[in-house]
Amino acid sequence: MKKINVGLIGFGTVGSGVVKILHDKKSLISSKIGLEIEVRKICEKDLSFKRNVAVARELFTKNPADIINDPQIDIVIELIGGVNPAKEYISEAIKKGKSIVTANKALLSQHGKELFTLAIDKQKSIYFESSVGAGIPIIKAVREGLVANNFSGVFGIVNGTSNFILSQMSDTDCSFKEALLDAQRKGYAEKDPRLDIDGADSAHKLALLVYLCYGRWVSIDEIYTEGISQISPLDVNFANELGLEIKLLAIAKKESDELEVRVHPTLIPKTHLLASVDGINNAIYVESDLAGDLLFYGPGAGQLSAASAVVSDLVDLSQGIKAGLFRPTLNIIKDKSIKRLRKIDDFESRYYIRFSAVDKPGVLAKISGVLAKFGISIASVTQKEKFRAREVPIVMIVHNAKEKNLRQALSMIDKLNVIKENTVAIRMEEA
Amino acid sequence: MKKINVGLIGFGTVGSGVVKILHDKKSLISSKIGLEIEVRKICEKDLSFKRNVAVARELFTKNPADIINDPQIDIVIELIGGVNPAKEYISEAIKKGKSIVTANKALLSQHGKELFTLAIDKQKSIYFESSVGAGIPIIKAVREGLVANNFSGVFGIVNGTSNFILSQMSDTDCSFKEALLDAQRKGYAEKDPRLDIDGADSAHKLALLVYLCYGRWVSIDEIYTEGISQISPLDVNFANELGLEIKLLAIAKKESDELEVRVHPTLIPKTHLLASVDGINNAIYVESDLAGDLLFYGPGAGQLSAASAVVSDLVDLSQGIKAGLFRPTLNIIKDKSIKRLRKIDDFESRYYIRFSAVDKPGVLAKISGVLAKFGISIASVTQKEKFRAREVPIVMIVHNAKEKNLRQALSMIDKLNVIKENTVAIRMEEA
Repeated sequence: MKKINVGLIGFGTVGSGVVKILHDKKSLISSKIGLEIEVRKICEKDLSFKRNVAVARELFTKNPADIINDPQIDIVIELIGGVNPAKEYISEAIKKGKSIVTANKALLSQHGKELFTLAIDKQKSIYFESSVGAGIPIIKAVREGLVANNFSGVFGIVNGTSNFILSQMSDTDCSFKEALLDAQRKGYAEKDPRLDIDGADSAHKLALLVYLCYGRWVSIDEIYTEGISQISPLDVNFANELGLEIKLLAIAKKESDELEVRVHPTLIPKTHLLASVDGINNAIYVESDLAGDLLFYGPGAGQLSAASAVVSDLVDLSQGIKAGLFRPTLNIIKDKSIKRLRKIDDFESRYYIRFSAVDKPGVLAKISGVLAKFGISIASVTQKEKFRAREVPIVMIVHNAKEKNLRQALSMIDKLNVIKENTVAIRMEEA
Repeated sequence: MKKINVGLIGFGTVGSGVVKILHDKKSLISSKIGLEIEVRKICEKDLSFKRNVAVARELFTKNPADIINDPQIDIVIELIGGVNPAKEYISEAIKKGKSIVTANKALLSQHGKELFTLAIDKQKSIYFESSVGAGIPIIKAVREGLVANNFSGVFGIVNGTSNFILSQMSDTDCSFKEALLDAQRKGYAEKDPRLDIDGADSAHKLALLVYLCYGRWVSIDEIYTEGISQISPLDVNFANELGLEIKLLAIAKKESDELEVRVHPTLIPKTHLLASVDGINNAIYVESDLAGDLLFYGPGAGQLSAASAVVSDLVDLSQGIKAGLFRPTLNIIKDKSIKRLRKIDDFESRYYIRFSAVDKPGVLAKISGVLAKFGISIASVTQKEKFRAREVPIVMIVHNAKEKNLRQALSMIDKLNVIKENTVAIRMEEA
């Protein structure tokens, strides 16, 4: 049986998961694909902590060049994360004729254009299934399963940590801080959780989904990004009463010849499929012209889940290498109907707005007067019971409004002397 | 650019959709894959009704042999449906060296074993993405995206017609008959709707999912199948009150060394993802050992949706043909840990049970006495307002019970003189 040799750079959680799967499922994989996939070398500097798979000592090296320069190695798996030196390792490996499997969304979202250009030039492939939604085969589904489709939008829950925190807040009425501590205790959040809760990780993944659906790289700075740390239990409760759920969504939408890219907390109806996505699960919604609206759901994290996707990439590349098959662009082409990214000021959305007002006659008239001035139309309004002695929360849903108009209106409203605290505004998406 | 020649047998709704996509998306497809896919011949006997795509007259033939015997044709698409003569056409085409794309679940569920054996023997492939869940790339996801996984279960909503009817009943309180008429008016149900509402179509698709996940063919007779025509608005209402939704589920579950295969109306919590699957949509839940629990959702019917899946198959086969790549088993192997199919009597499930009792003291004591005798334990019970003058509906949820015990208990209960009508029992699945 033909053997495909693999070199692994990074023997952490996911890396050891890959080795474990290739070991435990060796006969299953080879009887399915008629090939053996063998890990020939592993580069790892820190072997001090214990992994859940035993590996022969002679496979290890501390020098990535031992893998990159090994002419016997067909595929290099990069699982060290971070931009440098991962970028150099991948570039060098491609130049030495290797194909690449990586889970590195931070790297690809920043240098994807350069790396894919290099790969195409050298007739090699970069596979990255595990970089979005862990074991959910979303990249393959879009790239191959929906090969003839154009996409009007792709959006979803792509960060398990944030989703766990928001689920906890919704289920147990706890504060953001309490939910974050709980996530850290359970191992769902890092000690430094910023990448997850600030929306940056979601933005990285959105950049990959945009490349996948539209064949263009957006830089992270071009993605409007808002995290979840400002979400208060008060808003979670009011949302619940309104039949809504707060989720951190990564959203790409085609609006005529513009593409809108944004990551922010979003209110969706409880009947929406995404509203039922709890805990560390991820779900990606794809709006396609032929196959319709599709959803792909599953755990967004986990050693074996991410490793399952890496192994699927390995199998695809191995079969391709055996057959001499080469697909440089991975079925991805540029959607030429998109001329530019939409400016944030031009975003349009329905909004949930919570004002903290004093309990006096005429307050509602003042607020709605300002909104009317900016052409913002009210869909519903509820004045809540008093909160913290003198404040009265007024919760409003407004019809589609331009971001720019809404910001200006709220800034004017927050200057009114009847308003006690900064107004909270959360975007809404329809079912 | 290399050209792959395709012959199409069956120019109905899906067939004309395939031709339309290959025409409208010609440059998108060829720039993605570096190949041209050309429809060289179309076999269709009835050209009397209008299709939404124009085709040159000389492409048509009324004789399938013109396609099967054409040495220039690489791939034959079979879209005439039904068992015969589709089976003969496919067998002959394989023998002549063609690969096959088909949407024919009725045929594959009945003769899949024979056809796949022939294909493997002749080193050809049969692709069938469009046969389950239309444009949802579920076959590809399981076969390739989850290539290293074993599966403890696969279940879901795979018949759009039934799901539309149940959604209508739940949303509008209408009867089964009214919902069916509505579905027929909207084109979601055939004039003769039996295949859909009796669960047979779901069973066909379940057989394919079982082959996909477990590498074995179950015959339709081996799948316990119950349709939706007996579902009453009364039960839909009570379910709603209990926070449950009724869905027609196709279920395959591995229980130790047995496989359970069944299609029946099933109550699931409203918080379950499948509960939010409305209208003609389909959704398939896959329980995998590495990637965890995944859901694949999308429209389960529609011309372009099904055709999108056919085109994805065509692209895969075309790339394989170009590269000389051959995957006879399509990454499918037999799960040897399964020794037999579980007998219906041994199925275990929670149940929703509705008794129609007379309004007299002691009724509940009699019913619960019989249940206790068969070891069936009650989780909750609600006695409802009187219905139709003298009947009192008593709604019970019982803990896991064996099918055999439940049937015997209900048969005994239905003979009690306090029971006015046959008792209704609906299986439940957990979140």
